[in-house]
Amino acid sequence: MDGGMKHAPDVSLYLVTDSRLSLGRPVAEVVRAAAQNGVTIVQLREKDCSTRDFIALARRVREILAPLGIPLIINDRLDVALATGADGVHIGQSDMPYGNARRLLGEDAIIGLSVGTPEEARMAEMLDVDYLGVSPVFSTPTKTDTGDAWEIEGLKILRTRSRHRLVAIGGINQTNAATVMAAGADGIAVVSAICAADDPGKAARQLRAIVEKSRRRKILKGCQKKAS
Amino acid sequence: MDGGMKHAPDVSLYLVTDSRLSLGRPVAEVVRAAAQNGVTIVQLREKDCSTRDFIALARRVREILAPLGIPLIINDRLDVALATGADGVHIGQSDMPYGNARRLLGEDAIIGLSVGTPEEARMAEMLDVDYLGVSPVFSTPTKTDTGDAWEIEGLKILRTRSRHRLVAIGGINQTNAATVMAAGADGIAVVSAICAADDPGKAARQLRAIVEKSRRRKILKGCQKKAS
Repeated sequence: MDGGMKHAPDVSLYLVTDSRLSLGRPVAEVVRAAAQNGVTIVQLREKDCSTRDFIALARRVREILAPLGIPLIINDRLDVALATGADGVHIGQSDMPYGNARRLLGEDAIIGLSVGTPEEARMAEMLDVDYLGVSPVFSTPTKTDTGDAWEIEGLKILRTRSRHRLVAIGGINQTNAATVMAAGADGIAVVSAICAADDPGKAARQLRAIVEKSRRRKILKGCQKKAS
Repeated sequence: MDGGMKHAPDVSLYLVTDSRLSLGRPVAEVVRAAAQNGVTIVQLREKDCSTRDFIALARRVREILAPLGIPLIINDRLDVALATGADGVHIGQSDMPYGNARRLLGEDAIIGLSVGTPEEARMAEMLDVDYLGVSPVFSTPTKTDTGDAWEIEGLKILRTRSRHRLVAIGGINQTNAATVMAAGADGIAVVSAICAADDPGKAARQLRAIVEKSRRRKILKGCQKKAS
């Protein structure tokens, strides 16, 4: 691990890549368009490619993101993260256990963890993760290995119970992003809403604008509460 | 990386696991039987399992092998090797580049590299690998992503050109192991010949006996040459 920003990453608009959903465009091209238009953190998720190809892609994407100060997160594969100097990893419940990952990557790495149930979220309270991926917040065709959706109600409850940064993922797009933010998410993660968009850059701008508007609204609400 | 023997591993009888070929028996059970009966090094190769399951399996196998002083090698996945304290990794041409792997694992790790062509073998002469996997020496149904077989003739030529320890793999069994050793292999790697055997322990004993007999014959030949 090396490079710039590590802890307290800005998870406002979190792009998760999927080469199969990118309408035949190279992942690096989608990442570039999104990174120049408001995405704050990028996770490379490649399940069906060789280690060598994954490393090559991660290096290409890192060259795009590093000058913009946007952290690069690798899904599951610590070997790829270590070989490429990525900023961290995102692990799921069937990936490397968190403790192992932290020991191997060190204190400065960003490590995010997916939680699919209240029980998994409860266990995660004992871990020093950098954020929780609340997954899936809505049911989605992108991932089929996930359980029941949290839905807005589940996200709201989790917000009251977790000390961690919450990144909602699953079925989020321009129509529901504001609701997700209002429910207590610190950021939204998207796959299709950017990767499968006709114009990934435009999609990123729209989503980032929604996140920022929701954040201003939350701050205003907080002030009004204090003032009343 | 930690544990016992590292460099100059004994590659005489090299077991490569394949859970799909193990006739429904747990991999750890096959490994135990083989390890107690002459296998000198074990590589875990798991392509279709989660990182968490791979790590759990590697830990189980390491507990079996460590007391016997038999090194555990992980196929491709440096993350799994690092998380479990395995003795090294085996990498193919589409896995992590050798230089990256050596930097991440350190000098004491065992790193083997598959070579499928004379050109790949030529490139490997520049690398400080611990052994070459000459793959496939015969064509085999186990791996379908490999190129033409080396055959005995190719192995003989490679022996004259390579400074590395050569481990032949692909289609080796009790009927051809002696020929492979006589052609210049330092050891034989098997999958089916042990994993798919009715009695993996017995198969390991037979194969190890063949290897040792071939080795004695080679030493004898060398002495006769010197004496003549």
